[in-house]
Amino acid sequence: MTDDFERMWADLAPIGRSAASGGYFRQPFLAADAELRAWFVEQAVARGLEVETDGVGNVVAWWGPASGAAGTAVLTGSHLDSVLDGGAYDGPLGVVSALAAVDLLRSRGFVPRRRIGVSVFAEEEGSRFGLACLGSRLATGTMSWADARELRDRDGIALPDALEAAGLGGESLVSLGDVGTFVELHVEQGRDLVDRGAAVGVASEIWPHGRWRFDFTGEANHAGTTRMEDRADPMLTYAMTALAANKQARLAGARATFGRVEVTPNGTNAVPSRVTAWLDARSPSEADLASLVETVSRQGVDRAGRDGTSLEVTAESVSSSVAFDAGLASALAADHEGGDWPVLPTQAGHDAGILSAAGIPSAMLFVRNPTGVSHSPAESAQMSDCLVGVSALADTLERLAR
Amino acid sequence: MTDDFERMWADLAPIGRSAASGGYFRQPFLAADAELRAWFVEQAVARGLEVETDGVGNVVAWWGPASGAAGTAVLTGSHLDSVLDGGAYDGPLGVVSALAAVDLLRSRGFVPRRRIGVSVFAEEEGSRFGLACLGSRLATGTMSWADARELRDRDGIALPDALEAAGLGGESLVSLGDVGTFVELHVEQGRDLVDRGAAVGVASEIWPHGRWRFDFTGEANHAGTTRMEDRADPMLTYAMTALAANKQARLAGARATFGRVEVTPNGTNAVPSRVTAWLDARSPSEADLASLVETVSRQGVDRAGRDGTSLEVTAESVSSSVAFDAGLASALAADHEGGDWPVLPTQAGHDAGILSAAGIPSAMLFVRNPTGVSHSPAESAQMSDCLVGVSALADTLERLAR
Repeated sequence: MTDDFERMWADLAPIGRSAASGGYFRQPFLAADAELRAWFVEQAVARGLEVETDGVGNVVAWWGPASGAAGTAVLTGSHLDSVLDGGAYDGPLGVVSALAAVDLLRSRGFVPRRRIGVSVFAEEEGSRFGLACLGSRLATGTMSWADARELRDRDGIALPDALEAAGLGGESLVSLGDVGTFVELHVEQGRDLVDRGAAVGVASEIWPHGRWRFDFTGEANHAGTTRMEDRADPMLTYAMTALAANKQARLAGARATFGRVEVTPNGTNAVPSRVTAWLDARSPSEADLASLVETVSRQGVDRAGRDGTSLEVTAESVSSSVAFDAGLASALAADHEGGDWPVLPTQAGHDAGILSAAGIPSAMLFVRNPTGVSHSPAESAQMSDCLVGVSALADTLERLAR
Repeated sequence: MTDDFERMWADLAPIGRSAASGGYFRQPFLAADAELRAWFVEQAVARGLEVETDGVGNVVAWWGPASGAAGTAVLTGSHLDSVLDGGAYDGPLGVVSALAAVDLLRSRGFVPRRRIGVSVFAEEEGSRFGLACLGSRLATGTMSWADARELRDRDGIALPDALEAAGLGGESLVSLGDVGTFVELHVEQGRDLVDRGAAVGVASEIWPHGRWRFDFTGEANHAGTTRMEDRADPMLTYAMTALAANKQARLAGARATFGRVEVTPNGTNAVPSRVTAWLDARSPSEADLASLVETVSRQGVDRAGRDGTSLEVTAESVSSSVAFDAGLASALAADHEGGDWPVLPTQAGHDAGILSAAGIPSAMLFVRNPTGVSHSPAESAQMSDCLVGVSALADTLERLAR
C-alpha cells in the first residue's frame, strides 16, 4: 500500500506547481485542474471503480453494490483544486487517502455491503469564482444552476463559459441520492494535533464564516500636484479598515483577514479612485461574527466620512456554523489503539460542511500538520502520519459500509 | 485657427478612451499610442514639416531653416501617452497647442530665423516601465540605452521587446544637438491659476520627487485557521505605513501617495506572503524629501518588527529639483495685455525638467484647469483658456525664434 500511496503523490507533485515558490496554482477549469481530474479518473478505472462525472467537474468513483435506497451509500473524498500558491495536501490528501483506503480494505479482503464512493468536488476553495464549495453546493442542491450561471471570475468570465472552455458544462450532476454518510479526510490547518501529540483527529464543528466585499470609493487625482487636504483617497480608508479588522478580531477571539485587494487605476502617480478589498471573517458564533463585521464596517464608514470617501460593504458568501453529527464523530473517535482520537473544531469551510448542512450526516478526519501552515507552500504532513490517516479512514469506511 | 484646433481635439477624442470611465488608457508602445504617433506624423506632414522619428518612439516635426549650430533651435511640445484612466489634456494639450501655434505664426506671416521643432516624447508618465520621461531621458543622454534595455513592465516584458512589438527599436534617437530652448505647454494640475484668476501661467521650478518600492514580506497562511497571534501578515504593515506616509506628508507640507499595490497571492482566504506598494513622494526641498521618505520607512520597519514581517525600501527613480531658467521665465511672463502672467512652482515631473537638467534652458506654460484635477477623467480645460494658451505659446516662439 505504501508504494501505491507514494506513487500517487509522485504523480501529483508536478501538476500546477510553481518552480519559483514551490506552491500550487490549481485553479478550477484550467489546465492543471483538468490534468488532476484525468489523473483521478485513470486511478479509478485502474481500480475497476465505476466513474460518474458531471457538468461542473465533480467526479465520484463507486465501489461495491449498485446504487441502493436512500442512506445506503458511504461517500469519502475531498477536492483537487488549490488556492493561488497553495500547499500540496489541502484537498489532495483526502482524495489520495480515499483511494489508498480502498486499496487497504481490499488487501484486508473486505467486501462492502453498502457501496462506497470516492468523490472529488470541484472549486472547493472558491479561488476563481469567489464562492467556496461550488461543486458540492450544486451536487447537494444547496445552490441552483440558475444562480451558478451568474458567477463571474475576476476576469469577468462567466461560469458556463469557463466550464465549456474546459470541456465541461451541460448542467448534469453526480448522484448523491443514496449517500447516507460522508467522511472527508483533510490535512489539519493549524497546530492543535501537534500540541496534543496526536497523528489524527476528528472534527466537531465548523465555525461560521464568510466573505464580504468592501468597495472604497474616492476621487482619482495627480499624486504630485494634489494637496493632501484636497484629496479623497480611498487607500487611506482601506488602510485604517484593514487595521481595524485585525484589532477587532483579536479582541473578539475571532479571525479577520484582508488578503485580496484591487486598486483602480493602480498607478504609482495617481491617487486611486477606488480600492476594493475582501474581508474573510470567522468566529465561534454567528452573532459574534455578525457583530465583528458590523463593527469593522462601521469603523470604515466613520473613517470614510473623515477622508471624503465612501464605503459600501456587500456580503458575497456567508456560511452558518456546521455542527457535525456528534454521534458519528464520537463513534469515529472512540476505541482506538493508544486511546481516543481528539475531537476539535475547525475554522475552515469544507465540502463536508455543505453535505452536512444538506442533511447528510458527515464527519471529518484531520491529519497532523507539523508547521500548522495552510494555503501556503509551507503546508506540510509527514508520510507516517498520512499512513495513520489512511488506516483511520479505512477503519471508518469498514465500520460504515459493512 | 479655432477650427483646426477643434478638429485636432475631435481626432484625438476617441483614441484609447474607456467608454466605462471616460478616461484615457494610452499606454506606451501599445495600439492607442501607435495611433497617436501616426496621427501626429500625419499632422506634421500635412503642414509640410520635416519629420524625425527614433527607436523609442520620440518624434520631432521641424519647421524653418536646416539644422544649425548648437543653441540655434527652439523646441516645443509635450507627450501623448497617459496614465491609466487619465485625462484628455495632460500631454496632448502641449502637442496640439504647438501645432496650432505653428498655424497661428504662419497666419501672422511669421518666418522663423531659427528652426522650430514640435516634439512628442515617449513614455512621459512612466505608467508602463515605471520610469517617467523615458523618451526625453534617452534623447538628452540623461539615460543610456544600456540602462533602458534592463527596464521591464509589470508583466515582465523588456523594453526592447515592447519596442520591437510596436515596430520601434534600433536605438536611434532624435537629434536635439542644436536646441537652445525648450518650451512645454501643459494643463495645470492644480487650482493655482483658478485662485489667481489667470488663464495662463509660467513655471518657476519642479519640486524634487521620486518613486520608492516598498516590499513587505510575511508568511502566507490560511485566513480561517491561523490564529491572529500566529500570523506574520504584511498587509497590516503596509496599512500602517500608508497611513504614516499620509500623516508625515501633511506634517511636512509635502506630498506622499501609495496609489499602486500588488498582493501575493491576492486570495480572499489567504494571509498574504507579500505586499508590494509604491510610494510617490514630493517635497519643496531635497532634504525634506529625503527626510520624509526616511521617516515613513523607519515607521514601516518598526511596525514590521511588531508584525513579524519585514520591509525593504528601494528607490526606483528620484528626480532632483529643477529650477527653470529664471530669466527665460520672467521674460515669458512679462509685458502681456492685462498684466504679467503668474509664475508658480509645480510638483509634477515633466520632459521640460529633463531637458532643463540636461543643460537646455527650458520653460513651461500652464493653462488653467477649472477642476484642478489631473491624472483622472475629471481633468478639464476650457476651450477659451486653451486658445489663450496657443496664443501665448505662439508669442513665446516668435520671441525666441525671430
